[in-house]
Order: sequence, then structure tokens, then C-alpha cells
Amino acid sequence: MLKDAKHIFKLDPAKEITDEDLEKIAESDTDMILVGGTDNVTEDNVLNALSRVRRFSKSVALEVTNKDAVMPGFDHYFIPSVFNTSNIRWQHGLMLEALREYSHLIDYEDISMLPYIIMNEDSKAFEKAEAKPVTADELPHYIDMIDKLYKAEYVYIEYSGMYGDPEMMDIVSQHTDNTHVIYGGGISSKEQAKEMSQYADTIVVGNIIHEDVKRALRTIIK
Amino acid sequence: MLKDAKHIFKLDPAKEITDEDLEKIAESDTDMILVGGTDNVTEDNVLNALSRVRRFSKSVALEVTNKDAVMPGFDHYFIPSVFNTSNIRWQHGLMLEALREYSHLIDYEDISMLPYIIMNEDSKAFEKAEAKPVTADELPHYIDMIDKLYKAEYVYIEYSGMYGDPEMMDIVSQHTDNTHVIYGGGISSKEQAKEMSQYADTIVVGNIIHEDVKRALRTIIK
Repeated sequence: MLKDAKHIFKLDPAKEITDEDLEKIAESDTDMILVGGTDNVTEDNVLNALSRVRRFSKSVALEVTNKDAVMPGFDHYFIPSVFNTSNIRWQHGLMLEALREYSHLIDYEDISMLPYIIMNEDSKAFEKAEAKPVTADELPHYIDMIDKLYKAEYVYIEYSGMYGDPEMMDIVSQHTDNTHVIYGGGISSKEQAKEMSQYADTIVVGNIIHEDVKRALRTIIK
Repeated sequence: MLKDAKHIFKLDPAKEITDEDLEKIAESDTDMILVGGTDNVTEDNVLNALSRVRRFSKSVALEVTNKDAVMPGFDHYFIPSVFNTSNIRWQHGLMLEALREYSHLIDYEDISMLPYIIMNEDSKAFEKAEAKPVTADELPHYIDMIDKLYKAEYVYIEYSGMYGDPEMMDIVSQHTDNTHVIYGGGISSKEQAKEMSQYADTIVVGNIIHEDVKRALRTIIK
């Protein structure tokens, strides 16, 4: 489902959104709603987000960042794996913990691993995932490794709250032969959506939906 | 090439083998010779192993454990990635270092990542790779993760010098849908080769070729 998505709205379950705004998001031409965030993702607010979005026909996926906030009812589940971490826990330690707990419930058709490179060194995600900075010199090696050695289905370039560097995204684009590239971070205009869509197969638009839904809707460029 | 191999002889470049024994190995019905070891793998002894084996027509691959002992001339290169490590360096830190150094020389058609689970807790490989013990309870989760989340081409179950536990290999076999299973460790008889071939797509026979070549040849069961 992610392979066919050009545009995704990411709904942070810890942030507020009015029913009116949520309806605009869910009835827009976006391809998917991804529920996920870095902080304060709880069983309660994920369930709340799910039940509010489920009234619409849009596909809804969960980005699993807290194994205690996983529940049935989503169309798909993405398990983040941070490839520029310094601690194996954020590469797949948490994934193994989740499998220990939920393996009897899992239908692997419904879940995918989502390799991340977290670029914004000032973000909470970067700090939480004990990430290492990835320079323009190192980025090609990370991408070659993910695309041609891991042969991963996806790579998510996460600028987390900050609009990214098009030159870095150009490197990502040039070094991926088969891996599907997802871009996320700071998109809040049609121009930015267009720019990042040159390099990424999917763009993810997050924060702005909680701040200015009209501007958020303008990022759907197809 | 590994996908079609049922039997592999692993030649440790740091260990001795006579020309006569090497000829028997190289002219046997084994599918491939894999050059690799844990300790004292150097540019000199890898080059020596390569030039001696290259006189025969058998396929020869290199398991890259020391980035300073990599050279052209092998049919394929396998880059180990230890999935039960506690230190990301052995998952892909070394891989990134190698890419930094050799990316301009690499043809990705010729190299594959080889995910390892190191089982023998008393082995040098286990110690060197800062591996964590994998119990019978945890093994299914590791294998499910490698097979269904990483969707890796290969998984190498490494008992490193010790004959493995068939019950553990049965778990591996039952939890792999698409990943090609390689077994290595302690095989020194036809019976052991047969037993592990029930669970693994490829068996690797190592130490015994340096100790008793006649017994080594009997492990080729096809």
C-alpha cells in the first residue's frame, strides 16, 4: 500500500485536531493516513485517533513506536528501524521485544519494517533513537547499503519537523535502484511538496495538519 | 550462486592445508569454496588461498571479515552481518567502513550481505562479535524478523566449531518462508551432513578439511 502512495498525511496521536479538520484530511486526495509520533504515543490516544479516522474510507496505518500502543483495526503496521543509530536497540532490539510479546497475534502480511535515517540532529527523534549524524559523504554509503545489501523495500528519510536539504535528497534518489524512498519533514507548501516529490516516491506531511489544515491540503499536488 | 549450493567447503586462510588435500577439496563435488575465518585473516594469507584455489575451476567466494584483506579475483563476496550482536558495529558498522573505503571499486552484483546468528557461546566468533545468547524461546523471533521483516536473502546459523542442535535448526527451518538457510559448525561425517541438510538449504563444512580430508569428502552427500 505504501508503494502506491505518493502523498501521506501523518497524524500525531499526541496532538490535537478538530473533527472538522480531520474530516478535511480524511476526505482529501491523500493516499493514506499514517498514525504516529515520537512522544506521548499511548494506547488511549492511538485508539482515539483510530476510531476517529476509521469513520472515513481512507487507508490508515500505524507507525509502531510504542509496543504498548499497538491494537488491531489498522490496515497496515510499520515497524521503524533506525539505520543510523549507535544502539542496536533502535535498529531491531525493540522489534524483537514486540515479537516476543505479540508473535502469536501477528499476521506478517500486515506489517512491514520501515528503515529510517534520521537527519535532523536537533529533533527529539534523533536524540531518542541515539542517532549518529549522517554527512553528505556518508549518506551514499548508507543508501547503497540499504538499497543494495539489505535490499530493503523502503527507506524513510526523516527530517522530523525541519524542511530537508534537496541536495541530500538528490543523493538518496541517485543511490536507490529498488528501494522505495519516503521523505518526511517540514513540508508546508505546494512548492516544498513538489520539490521533495522530485526525489522521493512518497512524501509525508505531518505537523502542518495540526497547525493549518488549509495549507496542509495544498501539499497534495497530484 | 549460494542459492544453488547444497554443500560448501570453507577454507580458513589462517590454517594450513597441503596441495594434495586442497586439490581433493577443489576437485570434489562440493558446490563452492568459501574462503573465510575468524582470526588472523590477512591480505597475505587470503591472496595465498585465492591463488592456490584459482588453479581449479571451482567457484570461490570470500567471506569479508577484515576489510584490509579484500581483493579482486573472487567470484563473489559475502559481507557478514551479525544479527544477534549487542553492538551495531557488527551488524553494519564495519560494512559502512568498508563501503567508505571501497565504494568506488564495488560492483554490487558481486556482493551479498550474509546475516549471521552465532549460536556457540564459547566460540571466538561469538566473543568477537559481542553476540548475545539466543535461546530456543527467542530463536523463532530472530528468524521471523530476518525472514519476514528484513526479508533477507540468507541467514547463516553459525555453530562455529561445534556441532549444532538439530532442534534449534528445526525451529529455523520452520520459521523461514523465503530466506535461504545456511548451516555451519562441526560437521565431520556423512550422518551429520545428512542431519543438518534436513533443516538447511546449504551446509558449510570447515575445520575438518584442515584435519582429515578423507572425512571431509564424505560430507558431500548428494
